Amino acid sequence: MLGNCIKNVRKIAPLVHNITNYVTANDVANILLACGGSPIMSDEPEDVEEITSVCGGLHINIGTLNRRSIEGMFRAGRRANELGHVLLLDPVGAGASALRTDTAVRLMDELRFDVVRGNISEIKTLALGSGTTKGVDADVADAVTEERLDEGVAFVREFAEKAGCIAAVTGAVDLVSDGMSCYVIRNGRAEMGKITGTGCQLSGMMTAFLAANPENKLAAAAAAVCAMGLAGELAWMRMQEGDGNCAYRSRIIDAVCNMDEDALERGAN
Amino acid sequence: MLGNCIKNVRKIAPLVHNITNYVTANDVANILLACGGSPIMSDEPEDVEEITSVCGGLHINIGTLNRRSIEGMFRAGRRANELGHVLLLDPVGAGASALRTDTAVRLMDELRFDVVRGNISEIKTLALGSGTTKGVDADVADAVTEERLDEGVAFVREFAEKAGCIAAVTGAVDLVSDGMSCYVIRNGRAEMGKITGTGCQLSGMMTAFLAANPENKLAAAAAAVCAMGLAGELAWMRMQEGDGNCAYRSRIIDAVCNMDEDALERGAN
Amino acid sequence: MLGNCIKNVRKIAPLVHNITNYVTANDVANILLACGGSPIMSDEPEDVEEITSVCGGLHINIGTLNRRSIEGMFRAGRRANELGHVLLLDPVGAGASALRTDTAVRLMDELRFDVVRGNISEIKTLALGSGTTKGVDADVADAVTEERLDEGVAFVREFAEKAGCIAAVTGAVDLVSDGMSCYVIRNGRAEMGKITGTGCQLSGMMTAFLAANPENKLAAAAAAVCAMGLAGELAWMRMQEGDGNCAYRSRIIDAVCNMDEDALERGAN
Repeated sequence: MLGNCIKNVRKIAPLVHNITNYVTANDVANILLACGGSPIMSDEPEDVEEITSVCGGLHINIGTLNRRSIEGMFRAGRRANELGHVLLLDPVGAGASALRTDTAVRLMDELRFDVVRGNISEIKTLALGSGTTKGVDADVADAVTEERLDEGVAFVREFAEKAGCIAAVTGAVDLVSDGMSCYVIRNGRAEMGKITGTGCQLSGMMTAFLAANPENKLAAAAAAVCAMGLAGELAWMRMQEGDGNCAYRSRIIDAVCNMDEDALERGAN
Repeated sequence: MLGNCIKNVRKIAPLVHNITNYVTANDVANILLACGGSPIMSDEPEDVEEITSVCGGLHINIGTLNRRSIEGMFRAGRRANELGHVLLLDPVGAGASALRTDTAVRLMDELRFDVVRGNISEIKTLALGSGTTKGVDADVADAVTEERLDEGVAFVREFAEKAGCIAAVTGAVDLVSDGMSCYVIRNGRAEMGKITGTGCQLSGMMTAFLAANPENKLAAAAAAVCAMGLAGELAWMRMQEGDGNCAYRSRIIDAVCNMDEDALERGAN
Repeated sequence: MLGNCIKNVRKIAPLVHNITNYVTANDVANILLACGGSPIMSDEPEDVEEITSVCGGLHINIGTLNRRSIEGMFRAGRRANELGHVLLLDPVGAGASALRTDTAVRLMDELRFDVVRGNISEIKTLALGSGTTKGVDADVADAVTEERLDEGVAFVREFAEKAGCIAAVTGAVDLVSDGMSCYVIRNGRAEMGKITGTGCQLSGMMTAFLAANPENKLAAAAAAVCAMGLAGELAWMRMQEGDGNCAYRSRIIDAVCNMDEDALERGAN
């Protein structure tokens, strides 16, 4: 079932439009190619509507946002909604500045997202729905842990229900819910946090998974989370003496590139 | 002869000004260093004229273009023309949006390019010379293949003649023509398509090759295409169990870094 | 002593705000994670003040500057000064265009930097304090070499004294001075020059070192220079047949990731 999701990505090869930050854009593009999708980046308001029209999904990531790219996000998002394309939000740094929080909240208000994917702090900020700035560590709940799993599941499920979309909250334990069901995923490794942009990469890949599995969006979102986590586990087994976070980054994308449906099915946890 | 072209790049170490997209800028910079050139990036209109003045060539790439960078492209391009510097256009996504098509067409109209390098779809869009949007797959001819080689050669030669510059169309078979002669190049591997930005990298490197070989621009453009393809072949031989597209990307740039004139001369196909 | 500096980075894990170029932003983020810090990028004027408020240091790098990001540099810098945060300037390409030179000079005039880190050409441009454009090679003094070491030390010390901050001039020999003392550092390898952005990476890492060692800023700046150079040496020992500048780039960041305080203390030269 989860394995089938990556099989469909490779069969359909969805083109994914990314309005994303310049820090991790290259890695997002390469992981999209690795999983079987195809990336295109464009953030200029005059360009985005046509670009998103030829794609199967749109990934909006607010890291390194600016006034111009924010306009691009809204214009592309509205067009994607009109065309019924998959639409994903990665609210990078929501809670760290008013501009980021407000932009994420406004995007949620004005557009219909299929998925919101972020860490627990970002999603809690969106749940409060306010534009007040809290900084990256202030007023955010503790990470989702095994000890507080029930609480985390209840929060994510409620957020998804209210927001009317899938919520994917990634951390030590990953939770993916559509407001009713909730996948609890235990793939990945803590060392992935030492690489910049694994979250952005997951968001790009998840958009491709949903675009290729429109009938099973919840399973597709969960499969993407499992694929990323499993890649982190497989890549870690290939680490050699002297390797560090930069080699790990490369090996994770390579693990996605070499992952087949059986490996994903077996490895998903 | 082709081998001599890379030798000259290493001897002269041309500084190349790149107005390029933020997705692959890092790889473009590193492959320029690998081949013996030196990169500088700048897209701010107020900055580009002076920056391009101290360079030997200008590489304009319209991926992730925006209103500001478009103005930078024109200002830098005019200055490069005034100074007689090598000027290359990579019309990324021409055909996928009116802004991209129009920008590429206007650049071709207002500036004097030494080379236009793109895939067959992009070059066909430019050949039509219109600003109508066709999407990335619509209305584009089939790839250049062995079976339809004569047709492809005729098209590229005619495009180059009309445009008054070298046309480098890369794909399964690569064609490089100045309107009279036409190199037919059979280096490279299909797996290079799973890496983001190999085309952008080639465009950056090709600008260095022309800047270092001003008396033999056609041969220099062909040599750059051969060098990129050969690097793809050599890098593939170094791939290890578990490697994927990210390792391949790194190994290709490394292969350029280690390529000497004899290897290029022998390996060019 | 120098080893203690990296130990503190790992203990305190300073969040570093980078307003930097899109060419090397990913590498800057990954080396910050490798050394024990944490990166955040933001250049939008409306966003930067709040972002920098939650950080421990601000790294301003003028490569690929534009009108918008320049305003972001000033607004973030003023806030960082108000909060007493560590502030570092990397004047990439000062001397190559009036916009870059003027921006660097104005930043020095209006903000209080803890460190200015650049190559000898950039620092000489700032020492002249003028906005005239000289191109990247014109009017710049020779590199700091063993033969002309006394002259180099005198220049860097005088620049630091006049500027009222630490000056870190990197090249074949690296000099780090606060106007009184001057560290003369002989780590690193010439091959590091074939990788794009090792200077940017050092600037990001140095900001983390200072933020984590506020009582010993000069030693912290010197320790960062040693750590980068030592990483270049250790990474070179791990180079394999066929590796080139792209593998070297990755191995250097990995070497920082694996560097402990003893290795830095022993390896610093």
